[in-house]
Order: sequence, then structure tokens, then C-alpha cells
Amino acid sequence: MFVKNAWYAAGWSEEIEAAPLPRRILDQPVVLYRGASGTAAALDDCCPHRMAPLSLGTVEGDRLRCGYHGLLFDCAGTCVEVPGQATVPRWAKVRSYPLVERWRLAWIWMGEPDAADPDLIPHCPWLDSPDWAFSHGTVTYGCNYVLLVDNLLDLSHTTFTHKGTIGTESSATNPVTSTRENGTVRIERQMKDAAPSKLYQACGNFEGNVDRWQKIAYEPPGNIVIDAGAVPAGSNDRSRGIDTRIINYLTPETGESVFHFWAFARDFALDDPAMTSFIKEKIEVTFNEDKRVLDRQQEMVTARPQQRLFDKQADTGIVLARRLLDERLKAEAHGADA
Amino acid sequence: MFVKNAWYAAGWSEEIEAAPLPRRILDQPVVLYRGASGTAAALDDCCPHRMAPLSLGTVEGDRLRCGYHGLLFDCAGTCVEVPGQATVPRWAKVRSYPLVERWRLAWIWMGEPDAADPDLIPHCPWLDSPDWAFSHGTVTYGCNYVLLVDNLLDLSHTTFTHKGTIGTESSATNPVTSTRENGTVRIERQMKDAAPSKLYQACGNFEGNVDRWQKIAYEPPGNIVIDAGAVPAGSNDRSRGIDTRIINYLTPETGESVFHFWAFARDFALDDPAMTSFIKEKIEVTFNEDKRVLDRQQEMVTARPQQRLFDKQADTGIVLARRLLDERLKAEAHGADA
Amino acid sequence: MFVKNAWYAAGWSEEIEAAPLPRRILDQPVVLYRGASGTAAALDDCCPHRMAPLSLGTVEGDRLRCGYHGLLFDCAGTCVEVPGQATVPRWAKVRSYPLVERWRLAWIWMGEPDAADPDLIPHCPWLDSPDWAFSHGTVTYGCNYVLLVDNLLDLSHTTFTHKGTIGTESSATNPVTSTRENGTVRIERQMKDAAPSKLYQACGNFEGNVDRWQKIAYEPPGNIVIDAGAVPAGSNDRSRGIDTRIINYLTPETGESVFHFWAFARDFALDDPAMTSFIKEKIEVTFNEDKRVLDRQQEMVTARPQQRLFDKQADTGIVLARRLLDERLKAEAHGADA
Repeated sequence: MFVKNAWYAAGWSEEIEAAPLPRRILDQPVVLYRGASGTAAALDDCCPHRMAPLSLGTVEGDRLRCGYHGLLFDCAGTCVEVPGQATVPRWAKVRSYPLVERWRLAWIWMGEPDAADPDLIPHCPWLDSPDWAFSHGTVTYGCNYVLLVDNLLDLSHTTFTHKGTIGTESSATNPVTSTRENGTVRIERQMKDAAPSKLYQACGNFEGNVDRWQKIAYEPPGNIVIDAGAVPAGSNDRSRGIDTRIINYLTPETGESVFHFWAFARDFALDDPAMTSFIKEKIEVTFNEDKRVLDRQQEMVTARPQQRLFDKQADTGIVLARRLLDERLKAEAHGADA
Repeated sequence: MFVKNAWYAAGWSEEIEAAPLPRRILDQPVVLYRGASGTAAALDDCCPHRMAPLSLGTVEGDRLRCGYHGLLFDCAGTCVEVPGQATVPRWAKVRSYPLVERWRLAWIWMGEPDAADPDLIPHCPWLDSPDWAFSHGTVTYGCNYVLLVDNLLDLSHTTFTHKGTIGTESSATNPVTSTRENGTVRIERQMKDAAPSKLYQACGNFEGNVDRWQKIAYEPPGNIVIDAGAVPAGSNDRSRGIDTRIINYLTPETGESVFHFWAFARDFALDDPAMTSFIKEKIEVTFNEDKRVLDRQQEMVTARPQQRLFDKQADTGIVLARRLLDERLKAEAHGADA
Repeated sequence: MFVKNAWYAAGWSEEIEAAPLPRRILDQPVVLYRGASGTAAALDDCCPHRMAPLSLGTVEGDRLRCGYHGLLFDCAGTCVEVPGQATVPRWAKVRSYPLVERWRLAWIWMGEPDAADPDLIPHCPWLDSPDWAFSHGTVTYGCNYVLLVDNLLDLSHTTFTHKGTIGTESSATNPVTSTRENGTVRIERQMKDAAPSKLYQACGNFEGNVDRWQKIAYEPPGNIVIDAGAVPAGSNDRSRGIDTRIINYLTPETGESVFHFWAFARDFALDDPAMTSFIKEKIEVTFNEDKRVLDRQQEMVTARPQQRLFDKQADTGIVLARRLLDERLKAEAHGADA
């Protein structure tokens, strides 16, 4: 089940160019393209004439021409030309999706168009600020997006799954506090006098142990920002520490696959492209370690639909998050009924 | 739904040799082979003993021996030997299909054997005439055969899908006349004073514009011959023009795949193997451009069984053709009931 | 349908090391691993917490730690540690399967644990005897295990499927006698004054024809030992002949795939590794010839569930074997009801 009335990251702005980009979102085929005026648009990737994918077509000005019989559509999905005939018939219309670019991402609204309020787009200033630099990328997992939400909300897994990059003993052993504030679940872990991870060591050049924190904020359906950082143990000195935001926007491709648009923002080495590349490489290793587990986990979940998933104590945040998501799904279903 | 009582091209004669050739036709496994006497035969590709594919066997004389336990079948499907026993049991029989070779193709009849009249084989003299030379090949598409019929009957798509080979502006903008004569749908387009396509330019060495024609004849279920050619604009001089036949025999492999046995016959450069190769290469590029669209179109059609396909004005021929095909299917279903 | 209350070969002992080995058996995911003490264990390959495959984890001592959130299980499937919390909840338990190593194989019992009597493990002294040497391997077929039982019980197929290795004319033409003794079906073929197969020729250096024998013993669900050998024709002299055992343990992976753990034991060239390699190579060629047929046979069986498989005269052993297997399946189903 997908939340439909929400802004989803459809792609990085840099991905959307004149060449039409097909992308399946909430199990619907979407074509993204950028017109000559610079505006990005999203249409149903299916010509109403014969159901050819519009993504095989070409952009002309701000319009998209089907590559099969040449029907021409504007960015609102209205057909403006059917080659070989003088008039455009009524059926020649394709669904368009609201698309807004902000924070270097293109946000799509797959639900009721009237509800597509741009003020609801997740707040992500770290990707568009002179005080932060960031690495970023996209990973596609072969699992339902909720399994990836679970993954990102319980960082105790980093100890076991990511020994070579971001894992340390302390993530598994230190407890979390989980709270719900209106539409957000917050999960926090403090790790005092703990060994830094290999990644932190490389980023912060710490000489000994550190005081670390992980503050996760989850908003349904799949927006997770992690405020994480470290200072030398006992120092309480931010100027000698590192501050990061791990930003995660999850967009279901299908019921069993999900796009993970991620960014890792930092408050240090702002003008250092080597640091940007280094972090990108390490995070990609890390998320592919997750993918290795999650894709197989989905296979098990699919094969055994009756088997319960259990919760351990550190899963309190996940429990709150699932409840919040369920409420959102139910509210949307109720609204659809009303 | 397939028309069963019809001759389908099972393969090019040159494809059928002593080594058994498995080919799925109308979603049935068929094995084709050529016996020592030169006669080609078609059997159900399934040994009645243990259901091993006969295509893994070997030809002995005019017979086919199963590669598993060695049962030997003649070209009528009668078992003539069960190794290790003196008698052949009654169950040892495999269905054979009428197979006739004509016009360099092997034609198979998948329906009622009694109805398999060779006079019903499509007429295709251009592949067996000293006045014509031809290029030929086979393309397998991942779509229902009807989508490929649609494609070949509406050549306005060439303008958009085949810009680099056979497409020109005029195919999309000039109207067609569509008529039905008994069991045939005819679709005709005249293009006066039009630019030649890149392929025509290379074939005909035209200095300026041409008068072109496309005369399509469709016979259900999937036989399409296109009479196409050009002369210098206004000249009405066939001796300075080119005449071609694009011959298309469509044989469903499954409900979502189809073999396209095609030939491109010409009345020029008859003894020029380089021209034969050149045209083959260009046509293969062209049909693979179609395949790129049609395979994806089928995915959409499969994913959205409820979505209607609409017709534009140039689709009148397709509408007539679908009606003719439906009548044929209904007649066959009715005959099966009677 | 699988017989559950039986010992199945789960793998060669040499395959099971500290790195967890995932293997699907009777359509269940199993993880095999060897603890520090040397004992091999088999657990359900699914962590009860979040259904991650335990085979992505790591062995610590005799225990297996999940690679996702670090739950630690002993070889009986009991969780002994949940990282981050003091107590282990009741749900933290995973099914373990009885696993016994004997004859260089690890035997697993997928049914009622109480019925897992090690005395029921198939007797296979040839793999653990100074009087015999053996080649061995594993082939995975894309077919139901019963089709492979059929294959191994009717060696008349060797004449047609394995011309280059073990096939000769005589296997197809000489009759078999088939008998049932309690829980075993025995199928015997004597071939007097017959040409040796290419493999036999290479093994036995025979100058002329041989007297050969094939004595097959089948025990459900999938244990087949073939006593096969040859002496110079008319000599009755075992000292100038060769004696072999072809040992076959069939373990269903799924309903449409099966592991074939095979060994070829010999009473000659005991200390000759080149002979071991030579035979291994030839047997692998042979079984892959079978695989080529059986995988396609399964496709046909799946596509045509209504089509009967027929029996020829040499299939009397197969008929007895299927009846024995059916009785075993019914008895187990009846026991489950009782």
C-alpha cells in the first residue's frame, strides 16, 4: 500500500534533461523530461493512442512527441497535434503529475492534484546552503519501502552489517529513546566515549574516543533525516567535531522495489571534492551492504506471508513509525471513501 | 486468440535442415526437420513416452529418433520402433502438422488437418522469380501479433520511428484510402512531389523529389504485402523509378511474441549482392526500431488490460483489418462449435 | 509432494565450512555451517526477528550470528543474545534440523525431529573404504526429482543420450528384470558378449567384448545405488574385470529442481588421481547430457499437466518404484492425519 497524497522525490534535478527519462513510481510508469524553457514535467508514460511509452519520444520545445505516431503533448498532458489530421480528438490527453524542483531534487505528487501543495515538500536546506557540502546518489533496492524505513530507523544494524564503514560496537549496545511529535517520529541515541567508526575517523581525524549522537527524524511515508556527529570524548567542543546530515528520501518503484535518494551533508571540508568522492564511495558500499540483506529479506517476506516479524527493544522507534504510517494510509483510504 | 485454420510461415526453407529445429508456433512446441529424401516435416515437439522434446533427437533417413529413450517416429508422427521391445504400443503416436514448402518458406497448418488445402497458401511469386531480387530475414518481437499488424498497416509511424531509414515527412501528412474487398483490406497512400527516404535515395539515385506510393494488402491473420515504389516527381516514368514489395508473414510464437518473416523484393540491381546486403541491413535497423516500441507497448497493454486503444483518422485501415480478423476468429469459433 | 520423514543428503561434508552455506531443501531455505568444534549444523535460513537470511551472517564458535541486527543462535536454534538488551525474548528461536555426517555426506532430516533415527541413513560404505576409490560431484537439474529417479532407473536411455561416454547398443536392447523386496526396487540387466562403453574401455582396457551387468537398487524417496561392472566376454573372471558403484542421492531443491549428489566408486586404480579426475569429467559430461533433456522435459510436463506419461516394457522398474514412492507418501500423509 502506498501513500499517494505526498511529495516523492522523482529524481535528482540533474537527471532530468531533454532526453525523456522513464521511471516507475508507486508502480505507475512516469516519463520525466525538461523542456527548452528549463521546466521539468512528468507525464504518464503511455500514449493514449496506442499505449506506446512516451519516454521513447523526443522533446520539442516544452512539448513531448510520441516516438511511434508522432502525437505531440504539452507539459500538462494535452495533445496539441495529431499528425495527418486537422483536429485533435478528445481522447488525446495524458495524465500529468505535479512536479516541483526544490533542494536539487524533483518532487512528484502521485495523488489528488488539487492537494499538491508545494509547502508540503520536505524541508532540506542542507542541499542548498553555503554552510554545507554534500555527497549524493541513488540506490535501488529489491524490497518494499517499509523494509528500508525499518533499516534506516534502527541503526543498531550498522554494527553488524557495516563493520567496514560506519559500524561500531556502540550503535548496537547503546539504547535509544523514541518519541512521536505530531507527524514525526524521533529516535535518538547518545554514545559517550565511544570508538569512532572508520568513516568518522577518516572525516574527523579524531585522536581517541568520541562522544557521538544519532538523531533520526522520520516523516511518512519515507522521509528520514539523520542528524549525526561526534566531538572528542568529553570535550563538548563542536569546533573540534564533525556534524553531518544523512538525508534519505524513499520512493517506491513497485511493491517490491524502492528508490533510495540519499545525500550525506557535512559541515567540514566544504571545498574538498576528494572528500565528497570519498564519502560517496563509502556510503555506496554501505547501502549496497544493506541492499544485499534487504533484497533477500524481501524474498523471505514474500515467500512466507504468514510469518510474523518480531520487535526487539531497540525497535520502539520502528513501532511508532509503522503506527504513524498506518494512520496516514488509513486516513487517505478514509478520505478516498468520503 | 489465434486463427488456427490458416497457413503460417513456420520458417525459411533454408532454416530447416537435418538437425531438428524447435519452434513455438501458436503457443505449441513444434519440431521442424528435413529428412534424407529432402522432405521437411513438422511434429509436436513432445515424445508421447515421457514428454522429452523430440528436437533433442536426431534424424535417421526421413524419421526422427527421440534423444532420450530412442523411440523412432516417421514424418506422419507414427512410431515405428520402441527400442527393447518387439511391438509398438498404441500410445506411441505424436501429432504431425501439415507442412508445405513454397516461395522459399515452409508453411505450417496448426488447425484441422483436413482443411489444410495448399491452394490457400499465400501467393508470393516475388521470392521465386527471375524478375525480382530480394533481401530477407526474421525478427522476433515481444508483442502480440495484432500489434505488429497495426504497425505494418499504418505507415504514418515511419515518419517518427524510422527517421534514419525509411521515414519521411510525407508518410505522416498524406492521407490514406482504406477499402475492404472480400477477404482483403487494402490501404493506399499516394505522395506526390515528396522527398525520397534515405533508403529510396540510396536505391534509386533520385536527383530531386519523387512521386511515391504505398499500397498495402492485408489478409488475416497476419499476411501483409506492401507494393511500394517511386518515380521522379511528375515523370510518371516507371523506367526511371524503383518498384518494391515488402512482404510480411506474421506467425505468433505465443500470445505475447511473434515471428516476423520478412522479405524486401526489388526490380532493380537484380544481380547485386551488395544491394541485397545493404537493404537487409537497413530493414533490420528499421524493424528493430519497431521492436523497441512494440515490446514496450505490449508491456503497457499487459499492465493495463482495461485501457482502451484509440484510433486516429489514419487508422481506418487498421479498423477494417481488425474487423476482418475478428470475423475470421468468430467464424472459426463458430465452426468449432458446429 | 515430498517425503519429509527421510534423511536427505544436504551436501558433501567438504562443502560445509565456517562460512554459512545457504541451500534450499524440500523448498525450505536452510543454512548449513560448521562450528569451531567441528560440528555441522542446519538451521532455518530466516532470522525470527526480521526474516533476514541467517546465511548472510557469521559463525562465532559453534554459534551463528545474524548479519543484520546481530542476534546470536546456537546450533539448536536457540537465541542466546539479542544485542542491546539484557534478556532474550521467547520468539527468538529458529528451527534447527537434525544433521548427521556419515560417508562424507551431511544428512538432513526435514520431517518430524523425533523420528530422525540415524540408523535410517542410507548405507554407503564405498565412500569410506580402503578397497574403493571414488569420484564425486553435484549436479542441479531443473526438474522434479521423480523425473530424475525415472532417468536413473531406466538405463536404456544411455544408448541414446550418452553415446559419447557410457552408452552402448546393448543397454537398449537387453531386457531387464524388476523386482520389489520390501522397501527396495531392484532392476537388473545382463549384457553378454557386448561391446564395452567408451568409459568402460578406458577404465578396463578390454581387448574385445565384455559381459556386463547393471544392478540397480532404489529406495524412496531418491536413493539409487547401481552395481555395474564388466569382465572379458565369457571369462567369468572378476580379476580381469572392473567393478563399480554409481551412487546417487537425490535431494529436491524445489518442486521443479533437484540436487543430484553422485559418486562413482571403483575397485581399480585406487591410488590414481588421474583416473579419479578422468571419471569425474566423463560423468559430469554424462549427467549434463541428462540435464539437457530433463530440464526441457520438466518444461513440457509443466506446460501440459493433463498429458499422460506412458510406460514402455523396460519401464517396469519405474512403475514399481513409483508405486513404492506413492505408498511412502500416502503413509506419511496418513501418519500426519493420525
